[in-house]
Amino acid sequence: MTELESFVVELAAEAAKVTLPLFRGDYAEENKAGPGAFDPVTEADRGAEAAIRKLIAERYPHHGVIGEEYGEDRPDAEHVWVLDPVDGTRAFVAGLPLWTTLIGLQVGGKPTIGGIAQPYLGELFLGGPSGAVLMSRGETRPIRVRSCEKLTDAIIATTAPEIFTPPEFGAWTQVMAAARLARYGCDAYAYAMVAMGQIDMVAETGLKLWDWSALIPVVEAAGGECTNWRGEAVSGDGRIIAVGDPRVREQALVAFRRGAQ
Amino acid sequence: MTELESFVVELAAEAAKVTLPLFRGDYAEENKAGPGAFDPVTEADRGAEAAIRKLIAERYPHHGVIGEEYGEDRPDAEHVWVLDPVDGTRAFVAGLPLWTTLIGLQVGGKPTIGGIAQPYLGELFLGGPSGAVLMSRGETRPIRVRSCEKLTDAIIATTAPEIFTPPEFGAWTQVMAAARLARYGCDAYAYAMVAMGQIDMVAETGLKLWDWSALIPVVEAAGGECTNWRGEAVSGDGRIIAVGDPRVREQALVAFRRGAQ
Repeated sequence: MTELESFVVELAAEAAKVTLPLFRGDYAEENKAGPGAFDPVTEADRGAEAAIRKLIAERYPHHGVIGEEYGEDRPDAEHVWVLDPVDGTRAFVAGLPLWTTLIGLQVGGKPTIGGIAQPYLGELFLGGPSGAVLMSRGETRPIRVRSCEKLTDAIIATTAPEIFTPPEFGAWTQVMAAARLARYGCDAYAYAMVAMGQIDMVAETGLKLWDWSALIPVVEAAGGECTNWRGEAVSGDGRIIAVGDPRVREQALVAFRRGAQ
Repeated sequence: MTELESFVVELAAEAAKVTLPLFRGDYAEENKAGPGAFDPVTEADRGAEAAIRKLIAERYPHHGVIGEEYGEDRPDAEHVWVLDPVDGTRAFVAGLPLWTTLIGLQVGGKPTIGGIAQPYLGELFLGGPSGAVLMSRGETRPIRVRSCEKLTDAIIATTAPEIFTPPEFGAWTQVMAAARLARYGCDAYAYAMVAMGQIDMVAETGLKLWDWSALIPVVEAAGGECTNWRGEAVSGDGRIIAVGDPRVREQALVAFRRGAQ
């Protein structure tokens, strides 16, 4: 593991110190103020991002940082950290342990290292130059996508049908009808499942830089691929397809291309 | 905790010995036969139910058992165990740790004790005469639904939009438009979240006896309520609404009643 990969592990642990106590309402004191007076997600988001930024500034003061909560510092630096302290806000507030902390490092504009952390499960999916691993409960083991020749055998996932525009929803519906089964509501955790060979394809839209930057190195280091809905390099349009086996994407691409118009 | 409640804890532990090694493909040996040659869910379902049935037959040979996999034994007994060894099959095959093992005990036809177990998370939600608790990672703590005065503040959940008939989907869409946020894909785990005050309402259809029998004691012992889509006692039509605060259900009932026609 490289020094920068190890640093992602440190950052994830630091973020967990903020997020975990706020998950599932272990904040009785503040909540007495009544509904609406305290937003645990906002608190977790801000607190975790601040904690990560502090560590980065101490260790690598020349690195840039782009985060969902606190904006951009030195976004043109060679090394830029891209942070989403709580991805899957709706899972977080519903008590469901599938939200994640996303920590990505871009080098020269290219997503190079990524961490997808779920601290309640004690899981960190890490991808980078050293490969892809799942660090969980004291063990580190390599993870790998699985092969899947046909879309009809594929398990696919997306966030929720409501995120799509009508043409996008048409594409999703068509692909879903062909696939073996579809799951909703996993957010970034679905990409981790692609990387560990449990899910074959994730398709989403409306993603921001901090939603996808950490995911790409995890999926790619595990042998998978990420593209936009035209099968090209992930761009700024927020549409992503992640696959373990490109053959599944090829069979879905006619539909997705139409949905992306 | 009563003797029978403690027995549910034992049964859940026994089931976990079967399901956990099969979750996420820790069955490399068998899988070499190629796709379709080995179905881990079927194996987990059958193996876990068989293990539970064996323990029940040894300890309480006069009790009845109804299970999803192995049918009915003495279904007219005073005490009848109702089992779904793997609820949330699609979560299981997608590697998502929100499937559960459901263990219910009906006494005189009434759901009296329920256990919702998620062994990968190390969680058992238990409801019965002694109250509702979450047993997790060596700790046992009481759980309680939360109050929620208005549907517009409510977090709601269901399995997937595809499970609904068109009138049911119309009802769900209308309720969802009013609610604060909606989650898909939690299966029985969503009811556990109602019981611990994280989710305010779950509405589902197409449920079998083994899908809902264990859920009712957990939700009720935590202070919540379960009804059908007409606001009456849960019946054989497979439609369920579980709420932490009945006021939320009252505000949604016009829509659900229409959907249930």
